[in-house]
Parts: sequence; structure tokens; C-alpha cells
Amino acid sequence: MAFRHGRLRKELTMDAAEYTSSLRVDLEIVNAALVINAVHLKQLYRLGYLDKSSLVAALTALRELMRNPPPMTDFSLEDVHIVIEEELRRRVPLAADMLSLGKSRNDTVSAAIRIRVRERGCELIKDLLDLIVDVVEVSEREASTIFPVYTHMQPAMPATYGFVLSSYASRLIGAIRSLLRSISDLNRSPLGAAAIAGSSLPLDRRWVAEELGFEGLVTNALEATSSRDFLIDVLGSLLRIGVIFSDVGEDLVVLSSAEFGLIEMDESLSSTSSIMPNKKNPVVAEVMRTKVAEVVAELVRVASIISRRFGGYNLDLQQSTESTWRAFNSIESTVPMIRALIRTTKVNREKSLYACRPPIGMVELANKLVSDHKVPFRTAHVICGEISRALERGELEDSELESLMKRHGLAIKLTRDEIHEILDPVRVVESYRTEGSSNPSTVRDMARMTLREVEELRRAVEEKLEAFMSIYERAFSI
Amino acid sequence: MAFRHGRLRKELTMDAAEYTSSLRVDLEIVNAALVINAVHLKQLYRLGYLDKSSLVAALTALRELMRNPPPMTDFSLEDVHIVIEEELRRRVPLAADMLSLGKSRNDTVSAAIRIRVRERGCELIKDLLDLIVDVVEVSEREASTIFPVYTHMQPAMPATYGFVLSSYASRLIGAIRSLLRSISDLNRSPLGAAAIAGSSLPLDRRWVAEELGFEGLVTNALEATSSRDFLIDVLGSLLRIGVIFSDVGEDLVVLSSAEFGLIEMDESLSSTSSIMPNKKNPVVAEVMRTKVAEVVAELVRVASIISRRFGGYNLDLQQSTESTWRAFNSIESTVPMIRALIRTTKVNREKSLYACRPPIGMVELANKLVSDHKVPFRTAHVICGEISRALERGELEDSELESLMKRHGLAIKLTRDEIHEILDPVRVVESYRTEGSSNPSTVRDMARMTLREVEELRRAVEEKLEAFMSIYERAFSI
Amino acid sequence: MAFRHGRLRKELTMDAAEYTSSLRVDLEIVNAALVINAVHLKQLYRLGYLDKSSLVAALTALRELMRNPPPMTDFSLEDVHIVIEEELRRRVPLAADMLSLGKSRNDTVSAAIRIRVRERGCELIKDLLDLIVDVVEVSEREASTIFPVYTHMQPAMPATYGFVLSSYASRLIGAIRSLLRSISDLNRSPLGAAAIAGSSLPLDRRWVAEELGFEGLVTNALEATSSRDFLIDVLGSLLRIGVIFSDVGEDLVVLSSAEFGLIEMDESLSSTSSIMPNKKNPVVAEVMRTKVAEVVAELVRVASIISRRFGGYNLDLQQSTESTWRAFNSIESTVPMIRALIRTTKVNREKSLYACRPPIGMVELANKLVSDHKVPFRTAHVICGEISRALERGELEDSELESLMKRHGLAIKLTRDEIHEILDPVRVVESYRTEGSSNPSTVRDMARMTLREVEELRRAVEEKLEAFMSIYERAFSI
Amino acid sequence: MAFRHGRLRKELTMDAAEYTSSLRVDLEIVNAALVINAVHLKQLYRLGYLDKSSLVAALTALRELMRNPPPMTDFSLEDVHIVIEEELRRRVPLAADMLSLGKSRNDTVSAAIRIRVRERGCELIKDLLDLIVDVVEVSEREASTIFPVYTHMQPAMPATYGFVLSSYASRLIGAIRSLLRSISDLNRSPLGAAAIAGSSLPLDRRWVAEELGFEGLVTNALEATSSRDFLIDVLGSLLRIGVIFSDVGEDLVVLSSAEFGLIEMDESLSSTSSIMPNKKNPVVAEVMRTKVAEVVAELVRVASIISRRFGGYNLDLQQSTESTWRAFNSIESTVPMIRALIRTTKVNREKSLYACRPPIGMVELANKLVSDHKVPFRTAHVICGEISRALERGELEDSELESLMKRHGLAIKLTRDEIHEILDPVRVVESYRTEGSSNPSTVRDMARMTLREVEELRRAVEEKLEAFMSIYERAFSI
Repeated sequence: MAFRHGRLRKELTMDAAEYTSSLRVDLEIVNAALVINAVHLKQLYRLGYLDKSSLVAALTALRELMRNPPPMTDFSLEDVHIVIEEELRRRVPLAADMLSLGKSRNDTVSAAIRIRVRERGCELIKDLLDLIVDVVEVSEREASTIFPVYTHMQPAMPATYGFVLSSYASRLIGAIRSLLRSISDLNRSPLGAAAIAGSSLPLDRRWVAEELGFEGLVTNALEATSSRDFLIDVLGSLLRIGVIFSDVGEDLVVLSSAEFGLIEMDESLSSTSSIMPNKKNPVVAEVMRTKVAEVVAELVRVASIISRRFGGYNLDLQQSTESTWRAFNSIESTVPMIRALIRTTKVNREKSLYACRPPIGMVELANKLVSDHKVPFRTAHVICGEISRALERGELEDSELESLMKRHGLAIKLTRDEIHEILDPVRVVESYRTEGSSNPSTVRDMARMTLREVEELRRAVEEKLEAFMSIYERAFSI
Repeated sequence: MAFRHGRLRKELTMDAAEYTSSLRVDLEIVNAALVINAVHLKQLYRLGYLDKSSLVAALTALRELMRNPPPMTDFSLEDVHIVIEEELRRRVPLAADMLSLGKSRNDTVSAAIRIRVRERGCELIKDLLDLIVDVVEVSEREASTIFPVYTHMQPAMPATYGFVLSSYASRLIGAIRSLLRSISDLNRSPLGAAAIAGSSLPLDRRWVAEELGFEGLVTNALEATSSRDFLIDVLGSLLRIGVIFSDVGEDLVVLSSAEFGLIEMDESLSSTSSIMPNKKNPVVAEVMRTKVAEVVAELVRVASIISRRFGGYNLDLQQSTESTWRAFNSIESTVPMIRALIRTTKVNREKSLYACRPPIGMVELANKLVSDHKVPFRTAHVICGEISRALERGELEDSELESLMKRHGLAIKLTRDEIHEILDPVRVVESYRTEGSSNPSTVRDMARMTLREVEELRRAVEEKLEAFMSIYERAFSI
Repeated sequence: MAFRHGRLRKELTMDAAEYTSSLRVDLEIVNAALVINAVHLKQLYRLGYLDKSSLVAALTALRELMRNPPPMTDFSLEDVHIVIEEELRRRVPLAADMLSLGKSRNDTVSAAIRIRVRERGCELIKDLLDLIVDVVEVSEREASTIFPVYTHMQPAMPATYGFVLSSYASRLIGAIRSLLRSISDLNRSPLGAAAIAGSSLPLDRRWVAEELGFEGLVTNALEATSSRDFLIDVLGSLLRIGVIFSDVGEDLVVLSSAEFGLIEMDESLSSTSSIMPNKKNPVVAEVMRTKVAEVVAELVRVASIISRRFGGYNLDLQQSTESTWRAFNSIESTVPMIRALIRTTKVNREKSLYACRPPIGMVELANKLVSDHKVPFRTAHVICGEISRALERGELEDSELESLMKRHGLAIKLTRDEIHEILDPVRVVESYRTEGSSNPSTVRDMARMTLREVEELRRAVEEKLEAFMSIYERAFSI
Repeated sequence: MAFRHGRLRKELTMDAAEYTSSLRVDLEIVNAALVINAVHLKQLYRLGYLDKSSLVAALTALRELMRNPPPMTDFSLEDVHIVIEEELRRRVPLAADMLSLGKSRNDTVSAAIRIRVRERGCELIKDLLDLIVDVVEVSEREASTIFPVYTHMQPAMPATYGFVLSSYASRLIGAIRSLLRSISDLNRSPLGAAAIAGSSLPLDRRWVAEELGFEGLVTNALEATSSRDFLIDVLGSLLRIGVIFSDVGEDLVVLSSAEFGLIEMDESLSSTSSIMPNKKNPVVAEVMRTKVAEVVAELVRVASIISRRFGGYNLDLQQSTESTWRAFNSIESTVPMIRALIRTTKVNREKSLYACRPPIGMVELANKLVSDHKVPFRTAHVICGEISRALERGELEDSELESLMKRHGLAIKLTRDEIHEILDPVRVVESYRTEGSSNPSTVRDMARMTLREVEELRRAVEEKLEAFMSIYERAFSI
């Protein structure tokens, strides 16, 4: 690394080179770094600092490096930026020698991270949209499959399996919108900030930004080079996805337990025990359940690292990038798993119908007492509490019901059979009248609505991604 | 709590009541809960479940409770929702008895948290905008105060104090936009979801949402009642602010250290030692520096709690709310401190000018060699590295410069005096030509731009807040 | 605060005083601070810096302050140390004026935190030992209550309820030992380190340490005043307890779910729903389940805060103390809850026996094939896997068993009835022969062993606590 | 994986196999798993389940696998345990078929992690002891090198460079003791617990434990197989080291900044800027500073993962192991860096002496006023505060001193020159009389004490490590 020796006489020790090098994770941003360098050289040409033939040769060389990424194993080269400069030097020395004119690693790496995060973000969103389509498809198909829903891990109300899936879909939509916001937020160019305070070269920051698909500038050069605030939002969005994935994992593990037995996961996504021959273990869903832990840990790491600084760029920041890629990997690798699980998991219809038997849904009897008999809700609630208790003990007799009503000063005639009819899960579920309820027709409405949202989001993200990827075609030609 | 005894025979033990009660933190959402109840009763009246005089009496009672908040000390009442129901029962029993018809604590508390977070969020943004105005004011005033900026804690380039402040301002603008996005994201109504699966009552969810200032629905009832995904975004935005506050704190502590000595904090924001009479300690900035730790801890807490659930609402969720308020308190209480610090801190102009002496800013000599003498930048960089080294050792002689140039095969004449002239900090700073640089005129441009952004944001947030607060006037009248 | 005005001319603003004051949490260490001051004054008397009558009067005054803690509401007094000095000044000005001779707030607060943590630690251990006794009692009583144990949330083996409880008890013993180690680790005196580098006074650090119940010194004065490394260990130990508490909470919630239905929690520790009359919610166990989140958050906070420093004491450190008390509160308040739950929860014997029916425990059939018929285990495992599959589908016929054996080249006769006999849960559980197994007699052995450990630990901790508390008697008399 | 097909008909999908496999990180425990299997087979031989020639062949095969680790790339084999079983099957099928008799992956992996953690723990301690020796050596050499120490980032007292280093050494000793405690805590054998509840085989758990170098049992089989509580302590100890490393990094970065300039790091551990030729960046110390973030993140990950379980082993746990190795890597790789830095960093003696000039150390003037003139300390403190103020403004005249004394009612004559003499840094430092102070002779005492502690710890850890490693020789011979 030639330029070291102006200022420093000694080489970095090998150990220290390896310890401080970011090369191990720089593969992630090598393309982004190449395209930034290409655009920068074009700018230098426009400003008269580079002749045309050098530019043409350099662009060709950089494009070639994109096709055949350079080896990143010589830690003494510190990072991808030096690797590229050295590779270019072997091909077009004149261009290599100008690469750091008006451009530092500080603004370059900030730009490269932003470019790569927006790409990975959009790719992830596309994957998530495919996942949602799967979820919605099953949700629609199972829109009238009676299925209990739980609060406090106790059966609460009769609902449908499609309704539960629909909640995953809509939560994912929310998380995607969050991630899209984070991407828009970060998609501004730090380039032209140079090392920290700007440059005396008449760099056209807005032209560079446009060439690289950015929607504006991180104007202040100090912020541009040293702030990683945007990573908080990105990791927050990924955490939100992680929470949903963990929730789905937990739901699947619990619902497929022998005791719940409401769903059955496919054997191709289960394992057995090396010692206990009777076991069928929901291993995929279990690993999925750790996603929130994985992402929150990376968020803690990033927040701790980026807040440990003074002034402008500190090398600590370099360590925060790895967390970002790791969090992306953790989430991305889970998407195909969750898709496979959702598509292949089967509902045990009989058991789930049975799980919805009275007293589940008892509030609907209370509602009926209010609506049909003008009983104040709180009184109806107490009566229904007593009925629930009796039902659970298997002691509900018509005579008891009569005396119960009397005790509350009511002259309502209600039989055991009527209660069972009123609380028939299918009837209850179809009685729901509120928007977003688990009424099968509402579930189908939600499915349609979600698909419309998916289409809208897909168009948006594909448009974005196309714009982001088009820079690679444009950058290397003159 | 009357309704308990339908289903359960025994009282909750006092200990358990206190352990599980949320009353300690419910003061935060009591107004929101009251307004939700008012709107709900109006809806029940519209649907024919409540007579007009009861409604009128109930609205009066609820409004009165807003003025004189009920005591929240009887833990056996579990939470604010039961406290309100019991308070209302003493005044308008008929209405109290209907309060839970078609409404559960699950959708109510989710709505109340959203209402309170959007209020606190907007209030915080207003405070932050005031802070930014202060920052920008000082930034403008000190736009041409020469001040060094640092990378790796080493002086990097000459800049201005106003430029540093400008970076705080623009980062805060970014954080505010993040918080605004989080607020918009959560400002949807979960009401009408009832306990988890919707209700058989023909509740008009969109009317309720509108009355309460929500911009739409959290449609799926399961998501509406049990998801706290939105808290991730809110805490992420607060964390982003926390990172900035910590950074400002760190900068102030370091810059005001005896050794840096570039700024001086006011004595009214410093303390001394009880044992060492010579000390002047930057205590306010130190406490400020802990903000990132405080908020990241609350985010870890929330992420861990909300991901520990199965199905719909679990009481665990209740514990996540406290973290949210604590994070808000941590950030909010810091705003006046940072304002006071920014306004009263003085720059030590002499020392900061001296800190910018050569070789600081040496890249501008390199740039000059490239521009004026067609030296390749990498060569210029190496030459300037050697000059830096010589300067630091105080050994730079004109003869040495000549032989240095010769060694690099250049016939450039450059004297020590010329170097000092070229690297004169004032000259360097004024030579910056890129948008967002620390050139004084650019700093003033940024100040103007930031003030425009502040005004735009202020209008937006005040409009929002007005809409949010107007629900309290509307809700209690018929 | 008189001493401020030597060095600083201006008062701290009210806002800044409140922002930086630790008074809100100093109640926790007021006694420790008083006793430290008492011992310090005695030392000054021994060194001839204080006359006897002043000392006697001061000791009386400090003892009185222990009985009637001073108000800690005047934030301009910064912290408990100044409050004590000012209170003493009103009574024995001469002594107050000497309080900071050879003693700083830095070494005092480090000592006070250590004193208070060791007290709270020992108190907590005593509580935990009582809890373990409860757990062991129930474990012994239910040593032969057949109960399934789970891996991957799938029934794995027949065991006993007492066995499950025994695992809680032994994990708690492990956590207590961890906490005891942390207490021993921190129980060294930082006093005499003065502000940061020691003092020119001939302070007898070892005498002070002994008077205050410390077992040695934190020798290096810089470490003594500024390191909070010991908090990592303490919070780690509390986290370990938090993990166990959360696990117990999770187990109770799942096992008491309607679907598992293996245990029933007492109504006095459950609540119902304000809208769904059928609900019985395990609210206490749910809140218990959040303990790991609460403690890990405090650990993150402390680790982030204490690592954000340079050199010696920084005021940031003050913020870490609050986390420690909060973590203690979080754990301590849970102990009575978990005791109540363990004591009152009832096993549903019928359901738990039924849950252990074949194929649960199938490995024991495999073991038998190995032991009695010399079948290689892996073959036996595969055969038993097929039998499990058939059993679950209700398709196990004797003829099938025969052909199954044939398929594996075995001439073993095995009937359906024999399998059920072999896998009879009671028989399986009694067949376990390894130490620590769920064989009822082993469970009883473990109970006895645990009780012996409890007694040994109780003696140790009571001895410690007695020594720790005795300093209060000794310190205020001459 | 043959045994899968008894219970499950379908293969795990390739994706799912890769997603759930732990093979990527199992290289870490392959030796431990091999030795456990060897001992287990010896036990089966003793119990008559395996003939001698099979045992001998199997031991040879396992030993061979230790020399040439098996490829771990076929994810369908799930984990190292199956890889070993399959490798053994190709060589000694009879033994392979018995490998899971009375042993599950649950107890095996828990044992293997413990074995590997104790090895890595001891290796790390050895490295740390070497580091401490380096630190102590420099500490002794620089025992009388005057160096300022700081509180609140403000110069507090004159001290010595050796004193600062001594605090690193003693904190590291504390962290090592913490890690040793954690290792002792975990060094108990879970083997014989089988899958979760023990086994009907008469396994001699204590014999196995002894063969494997464990000091006792994790008795309860449920705890043995599923608890990872011990990881909390281990990661806590590593975090404690991480905090110290980060602190050292921060100190080095600040002290070597141009403004402080008290130390100079070697060029072989510094880098420059690709754009700014004047820069010398402390990159190694910066990366070191991120260690606390890295370890705390892994601790959050582990705590979140291990507390997300029900009952016995869940696959989630597998994900926690990776964090442990990552935390070890993060700390271990830093040790040579910190050693290189400590050894090569040079003190700028002139600047550090100058940094200790009055008013630094002013408390010693106050002490003198108390000792020699019977001035109450608080009065002396105020006087010295005023003198400090005057000194900082360069306005201290003898006449002023006189009037200052008069104002406080004192007839003490004190001249400017006397003050400078009293506060001469060398004199101040040599006046410290307390144990653990920065008096050069005390620093040398501490160095000697620390070296004694190092030797004692080294003997202890080498003994331990020898015992731990000896199992590998013993296990494979009969």
C-alpha cells in the first residue's frame, strides 16, 4: 500500500493488519465500491483531471473487476477501497493515482453501504411479498376453517385459521412499509463530502448522486462521512420482521405440540431424536423462533459501536457494518423456511373445531343477552362467567340456568341446548360483523385487500430496484 | 371488581394484584382511556344500546374524570380501565355496565398507547425543533469560526464551529423525520377488534377511528389487539435521537477537556469536586452521554417482552409500555439541557485556530499539486505525507522540499512559506467548493435550509398535534 | 453547597441540578454512606484531625440520621454525600468540614454501592432459599406423580412432577452460588483511594475495610474509584435468576393452558377478562415471564454506560447504579409470587398420566430390545420409530409387529399388549437407574441433597449477613 | 441418516437441513464429542453391551477422527453427533449402532460445550496472564513516570504512567478470577442424563464424569440436558474482559490524540488516510474499543435465546452456542493486539509532566492547610478552589493570596512560589501514603503483588488445563 509510506515509516504488523482489516466482510460492498469509483472517475474526467483514454480504460477495468471480483485476502491492503485502487493501478495506473482525488474512504464506504443496503432491502421485500402471497393464499383457502384464537395462552374466541394467517400477512405488510421508509431515508448520497469537511474541487455532488440512483444528498459533510444513524432504522425494520418471524415460529411450535395438536407440520420440515424414536420435532420453526434474538443482538451491537465515537469517522464504525449484513442474512434465510412451513402445514380440522366448543366464545351469549333481553353487559358478563364455570365442570343443567337467571332478577328462559346452539363456533364466527374480524367473508376481504397492497408494494419496490440496478449498466460506459 | 366473580370464586391475593397491576404507569394513558370510553359510549348510543340521558351523564362524568384524575392506588382494580369503569359506576351505573360491550381492554389499551405515543411524539418533535433552531442560530453565528474537525480522534481538516453544529442540526432533522414516520405508522385504530377476533355488534370502526383522530384501521383484529410491532419503530426513532444526544455529549466533554480546550461550557452547567478544588466537571454533558444506553436498554426490553408470546394478547405486553414512557422521559428531559449547553458554550477561538495549523488540511496542498502541476494525486499524497512528517518534527526546510520534489522526479518549486500560506486555515476553509462543506458561506446556506425544514416540520407537527388534541374537545359533547 | 463557590462563580441551574442529581435513587445507599462517614471520622480522630467531643457528637448525629433519613429533595445538593455533609454541618460543623479530608465521593460511592449490593444480595439469597425449600417440599410430595417431560415442546419421556420441580431447585442453587461468588468478588474496600490516586494522609485502608465488613481492598486507587466491573458479575447472576424465573413462568403458562391442562393454578393467582366471561388467565406467571427481559435490559444499560468513559470516575457511572437496584427489585418482587404459585398449583394427575401413554418413552422399548435381544441400538431405534408411527395412527396390530421384526431380520415375538406393559409410565419411571433421573426414589434423593445444600448455604449467607449488618452497630460508637 | 426413517417417512428438505444444521459451528466441539463418545463406548463395554474387539476398533477409529476431522459439509447429517456416528459406522458398524444407547445428543452436546468452554477459557486465561506480565513490566518500568490521571475527562491529580497500567493489570486479575469461577461452575458432567429424564441403563455417571475431567455432576437430568444457565456466567466474565479492553482502547485513543499527546503509539499499529496525508490513526485501539459491544451483543443473544423455551431441550439452544464461540474469538484475537500496544507505546514525558502542573493536585495544598495550619478541610477546599481559579487565569499574585487568606479569617502566609513547590508533581506523587496510591514505590509494590497473583493463577490454570487435556490421551486407550 504505497501511500502509507509518506506519513508512516513502518509497515502495519501482519497481526494488526488482519485485526483492523474489513476485507472479510467487504465482499458485500465490492460492486457498490466499483460503481462509485467509476462514477467518480467520470466526474474527474469532466473536471479535466483525467484524459479520455485513461477513463475508458479504467471503466473497462472496473467493469471487469465486477465480473471477476478481486481476491480479498491480503489484509495489509486494509479494505476493499485499497484493493480496488491497487487492482486498477496494475491496469490503468494513471486512473488509480487519481482515485482518491476529492474522494475519501469515509464518504465512499458510507455510500457503498447505503447502495448495498438498499439493494438487499429491496430484494428482501420482494421475498417477503412472495411470502405474503403464500400466506394470503392459504389464508383464503382456510378462510372458513374454524380455529380457536388465544389470549394469555387460553382459548379466547372461535375464529378461523385463515384469520390467524391474515394477521401474519398484515403485520408483514406493516414491517415492509417500515423497511421501505428506512430505505428511502438512507438513499441519499454522502459522496463529495471527501474525508469530513468537503473539498476544494468543484465536485458536482448532485450529478454523482443521480448517477448512483440516490434521491438527494446527505448535505453536511461531517454527517455524510461519519453518521450511521440510518442503520438504526434499517435494523429496527429488520427487528420488526424478526419479531414476526419469531411469533410465527412460536405459534407453529405450540399449535403443533401433541397437546394442542391443531396443526401438523410436514415431515420434510421436522426431525426426530437420535435416542427417542417417538419424537417428531419442529426444528425449523424452533430455529425461526431465534430470529428476534439474532436481530436484536445486532442492533445492540450497532447502537453501542456507533455511539462510541468522537467527531467524525472512527474505525469502530467499520465493525457496525458486519452486524447489518448478519441481520439481513438471518432474516433472508428464514423466508424460504417460513414459506415452506406455511404452504405445507395442515390444520387438524376436527380438533380445532372441538377446541372452539363452549364456553369459548361466551361473550357472544353475553352480547345476545344485552341485545335481545336488554340485560346490562356487566350483568350478562357475570352470568356468562357462572355459565362458563358450570360448563367447564360439566354441571350445566337447565334448572340451574333458571335459578341463575332468577338470582340476577331476570326472567329469561335459556336452555343448555340453546346455549350450545348460540355458541356453535360456526355460528359465532359468522356472527362477527366488524371490519377485520374472523368472519370468513371478512377474512376473504382482508385477503383481497392484502393482495392489492402486495401488488402496489411490488410495483413500487421493483421500480426502485430497477433504478438501483440500472446504475451498474450506466456507470461503466461513457 | 365485580365481574371477576362470575368466572372465579377467589379474590386475587393482594401481592399478586400489586405484582400484575399496571396502575403504576397507567397515569400516562388515563386521558386516552377516558376519551376512548366516551367515543365508545357514543357509538353504543347510536346503536341503541344506551339511552341519551345516560350518555349525556356519562360523558359529563368522564370529562370530569379527565379534569380530576381518579386515584390509581387500589391494585385490586388491575388497571386504568377497571378504575374508570368503577368510577363511572358510582356516577352512571347504567353506562358503566355497558362499557365493555363490544370493547375489551385489549383493543382499548392498544388504542390508548397509540394515542399517548402520538401525543408525546409530537410534543417531543416540537421540543426538538426548538432545539434545532437554537443550534442553527449558533451555527450561523459561528459560521466562520475556524474549528478543527477530527477523524480517528486525530485532527483531520480545518473547518468551522458552525459546520459542526450544522451536522447536529441535520442529524436531528433526520431523526425527527424517522419519528414522524413512526407516528404515522402507528396512528391507526385497533378499536372494534374487541378481545381478539372482532364482535357481533355492528360497530362502525371507521367512525370511531375518525372521532379519535386515527388515520385508518389496524384492520385484522388479532393484530389490532396483540401486536406491538409499532413500538419497535418508535423506540428505534428514540434511539436514533439518543445516539445523537450521546454524540453531542461526548463531543462537548472531549472538546472542553483541558487538553483540547476548544470550547468552554458555562459554569452554570458544570460542577466541581468535593475533594479536588481544581476541578470543573462537565456533568450535564456526561449524563447526556448515557442516553443511548438508556434507550437501547428499553428497546432490548421491549423486543424481548413482545416476542415472548403465543397467539393474541398476553399480560407480558403490559410490561413493554413502561419502557416506552421511560425512553420518552429519558430523551425529553435531555432537550432543555442540550439547548442550554449549545446556547451557553463558548468557543476558544485562539486555540481552535491554532489547532488547525499545518499539517492539518494537507490534502489541500495535494489537491493544489494535482490541479496546478498535474501531479498524479497518489504521488502528491505521498509527498504531502512526507511534508506532514517533517512539519510535525519541525524540520521542514526549503532545501529539503526541493530534494523531496526531485526524489519524486518533479521540478516544482515550493517553499515552506508557500505551504503555510496554502494551508492557512482560513484560506483552506474558504476554498471548499462542495455543497455541504464547512466553507462559511455553505454553512450559512445549510442554516437557511435547515430553518426552512424546521418551519415545514413545525407546521406539519402542529397540525397533527392540533388534530390529536381536538379529540378531547369533541369526544365529551354529544 | 458551599464548596462549589471556590472554583465556580455561578450556581448550577435548577434544571441541570435535577438532571444530574442522583438523589432520586440515593435512598438506597443512605445508610451505607452514613456508616462510611462514621468510620472515616473515627479514622480522622485516630490521626488527630478531629477532637473527641466532635467525633462523639458527629457519630450521634449520623446515627440519628440513620433513624430519620434526611430529606433528599433538594437537587442542588447533587447527591447523598452532600446531603449528609450539610445535615452534619447543621449539627457538628467542625466534623462536617472534615468529612472530605482524605475521602472523596468517588471512593465513598463505590464503597456504598458495594455495601448495599452485598446486603441486598444476601437478603435475596435468603428469600431464594425459602423459595427452594417450598419447591423441594412440593417436589418431594409429588416425587411419584407421573408427569410428562418435553423436548422441542413434544412429549419426550414419562417423568414425575417432582422431577420437574427438582430441576428448578437445583438451577436456583446454581444461581445462588453464582450470586454468592459475585458478592465475595465485590466485597473489597475502595476507601482510602480518595479521588483517584490515593492521599498524602496516612489513612489505614485495612482498618477501615475491616470496620466496614470488607474482606480486603480494591488496592489500585484508580480501579477502586472508577471501576464498576463488579456490577457485570452481579447483574449476570441476577440475569441467571431471571432466566430461571422466566422459564418457570413459561412452564406454568403452557402446562396450565386448556390444551395441556396438566396443572391448574389457583384462582387467587389468576384473573379473568373484562369482556370474555370464559377466561381464566395466568397473569402472575405471565408477568414473571418478563423477568429475563427486565434484567437483560439493565445489564445492557450498565455495560453500555460503564464502558463509555475515559480515565477515572465519570458522572455517567452514576446512571449505572439505578439499573442495579431496578434489577434487584425486579427479581425480589417475583420471589413471593413464584412461592405462591409453586405452593398452590395443583397437578391434574389423570391428564398427566394419560399424557405419558405410549409411544412416549419408546426409547425404553428400544433399550429392552438391546438388553434382552442383543439388537443393535440403532436397529432397535428404527423399529421403535415405526412402532411409534403406527401407535400414533392407532394402527398397531400384532401381525404388523411380527412382519416388522421380520423385515429387520429379527425373530423376536412382541405383542401390542407387551409394548403397552413395557411402556407403562409408572413402570418406565421406576426403571430409570441413573443418578439424577426422574425415578421417584431418585427425586427424593435429590430433594434431600438439595435441602442439605440449602442448609449449608443458609448458614453461610446468614453468617455473612450478620457480619455485614454488624458494622452499623459498631460504627457509631467509639 | 438412517434412524430418521423409522419415525418419519420424508427426508428433510435440503433447505431445511441447512437452515437447522449446526455443522457450521460444530468444528469447535468435534474433539469434545469424540472423546465423549469414546468414554461412552468404554462404559457400554463395561456394562456388557459391546465386545472388546469392537471397542478397541472403535476407539482407534475415534482417535483417528480426532487427527483427521471428518468433513462437516453434508447438512442432511444435522450435526457433529450424526457425522461421528456415520463415520464410525463406515469403520465399526457395531459400535456405531450402539452409540446412542443411553446417550442422547442433548446430554452429549451439553457436555461437549462445557468441555470446549473450559479449554478455551483456560487458554484465554493463559493469554491474559501473559498480557498482564507485559502490562506489569511496563508498569514497573514507568513506575515513576509522572502522568496525569483524569476524572470527568478533566485532569484530576498527578500520578504515574505505571499507576495507570497497574489498574489495567489488577482489573484483568479480577476478570480472570471471574472467568475461573465460571469455569469451575460449569465443569460438571451432564452425561448419563440421556435425553431428558435419565436412563434405565445402569450408567455410572460419576465414572464418566471423572474420565472426562469433570468435577461433579449436573445431577438433575432435566437441568443437565436443557439448562444453559452456565453460559450467562461465562459470557458475563467475557463481557467483563471486553469492558476492560474497550477501556484500554479508549484510553489509548484519547491519550494519543494530538491534543492530549501524552503517549505515542507505534507506527506499526497505526494507519494513515488514503486522502489526508497528515493523518496517523490509532486503528488498532479503535477496533479494540468495540469489544464491549461485541460481547454484550452475544450476551443479549444468548439470554434471549435460552429463555425462549418450554420444558427440556429445544433446538433454539443450538443457536446460543455460536454466540459463545464468537465472544471468545472477539476477546482472544484482541489479546496480542493489546500486548503489542502496551509494549510499544511510548510516553511523552515532557508533556505528561507539564499536564500535571498546578492547579492539578490542589487537594494536597488543602491537605497541607489542614495538617499544618488546622484549617477545617471545607474552608481549605474553598480557598484552594479560588487559588485554582486564579492560577488558571494566570492571575495569582502574592498580594492576592494574602487578601484571600484574610477574607477567610486566616493569618497564614503563603506565596505563589510556595504553592508551586507544594504542588510540584514529583513531590505530590511521592507524598501519597495510602496503599494502592500512585506513589512510585506503591506502584512497584502493586507490580510485585500482581506478579505473585499471576504466578498463583498460572499454576492453577495450567494444572486445570493439563487435567482437561489429559482426557484425550486417556479416553482412546482401553
